[in-house]
Amino acid sequence: MRNRNDDIANAMELLARLPGLGPRSAQRIVLHLLRRRESLLQPLAQALAALEQSVKRCGECGNYDTTDPCHICGDAKRQQEVICVVKDVADLWALERAGVHRGLYHVTGGLLSPIDGIAPDDLDIAKLLERVRALGVREVIIALDATVEGQTTAHYIAEALHGQEVAVSHLAQGVPVGGELEYLDDGTIAAAFRARGRMGE
Amino acid sequence: MRNRNDDIANAMELLARLPGLGPRSAQRIVLHLLRRRESLLQPLAQALAALEQSVKRCGECGNYDTTDPCHICGDAKRQQEVICVVKDVADLWALERAGVHRGLYHVTGGLLSPIDGIAPDDLDIAKLLERVRALGVREVIIALDATVEGQTTAHYIAEALHGQEVAVSHLAQGVPVGGELEYLDDGTIAAAFRARGRMGE
Repeated sequence: MRNRNDDIANAMELLARLPGLGPRSAQRIVLHLLRRRESLLQPLAQALAALEQSVKRCGECGNYDTTDPCHICGDAKRQQEVICVVKDVADLWALERAGVHRGLYHVTGGLLSPIDGIAPDDLDIAKLLERVRALGVREVIIALDATVEGQTTAHYIAEALHGQEVAVSHLAQGVPVGGELEYLDDGTIAAAFRARGRMGE
Repeated sequence: MRNRNDDIANAMELLARLPGLGPRSAQRIVLHLLRRRESLLQPLAQALAALEQSVKRCGECGNYDTTDPCHICGDAKRQQEVICVVKDVADLWALERAGVHRGLYHVTGGLLSPIDGIAPDDLDIAKLLERVRALGVREVIIALDATVEGQTTAHYIAEALHGQEVAVSHLAQGVPVGGELEYLDDGTIAAAFRARGRMGE
């Protein structure tokens, strides 16, 4: 853009490449930052530099952390014999928020997808198998998306674990908490109907 | 959030304070950045640091630039005797994009608003008057929002310029280019009707 200096244009161009942002919102953000130089711009520049320098992938599970192994893999109080398989770190965080899993994780980094060129080798299943053996894992909980890719990947992982002395489980499908039947898709209603349980259990 | 390291949490918290973003989109952005460490995270951290260090307000007009006076005020080829008054730098950029104004600018930094505590002294009108005299300005074009605050501010500035040998003009109001009458508000239709011009002119 004419008459706009390079530092501004550069910051704007990079911000526009963030998910959910475009040229308009990037411009708004740059002006917002320039008006809050000390309270926001400077801390944010430093925070992103720190992020880049200190945060790495955990060599064990694929989580992001400042330490490798990450604080989950390094926490002796967590169950070493239960591994939960998730697609990415956002899903790992979602499970940690829910606070139901006390074991370890394996982050696949994606789902099998011939269209996107994601093949079994990309999911680091060898590392999962190695840890299952080394840690004496007794349960692998597959917590992948309830989509075609998620379920294909889940089946692939279950197959790969076949022959190990380990139980393989998956998340239950059904009506989401707070969900209204009227607005649910047929697949969810059918799954919830089939997997119905006795009242009071 | 539990089990998420400080550098990640800090970056996320700061990103969530940007306009249009919240905790969810900030989390998505952090993961997006960590996956594109060299192509996006590092350049963005550097770009924001450069923005903070090099970009300042122009002491003449209030524009943002790496130089003071800014490249517009310092451009001898621009008309020194026409000043366009805008609310903020986003509006200055919008006018530059339109490419219709060949003169200088005065950025008020806001609009008069008793509710938000923005008083005449906050708009740097003294500086505008000083430049009108020093540069021998013959026209001040007031390009403020067509809102109550914008028009109140426009009238205030016109009053302040009263007694100077300078023409004060404002942007025309009417149907926006590409606008369909059916979807325009009554005020715009009335303004366009009143300010109607002869066909072919």
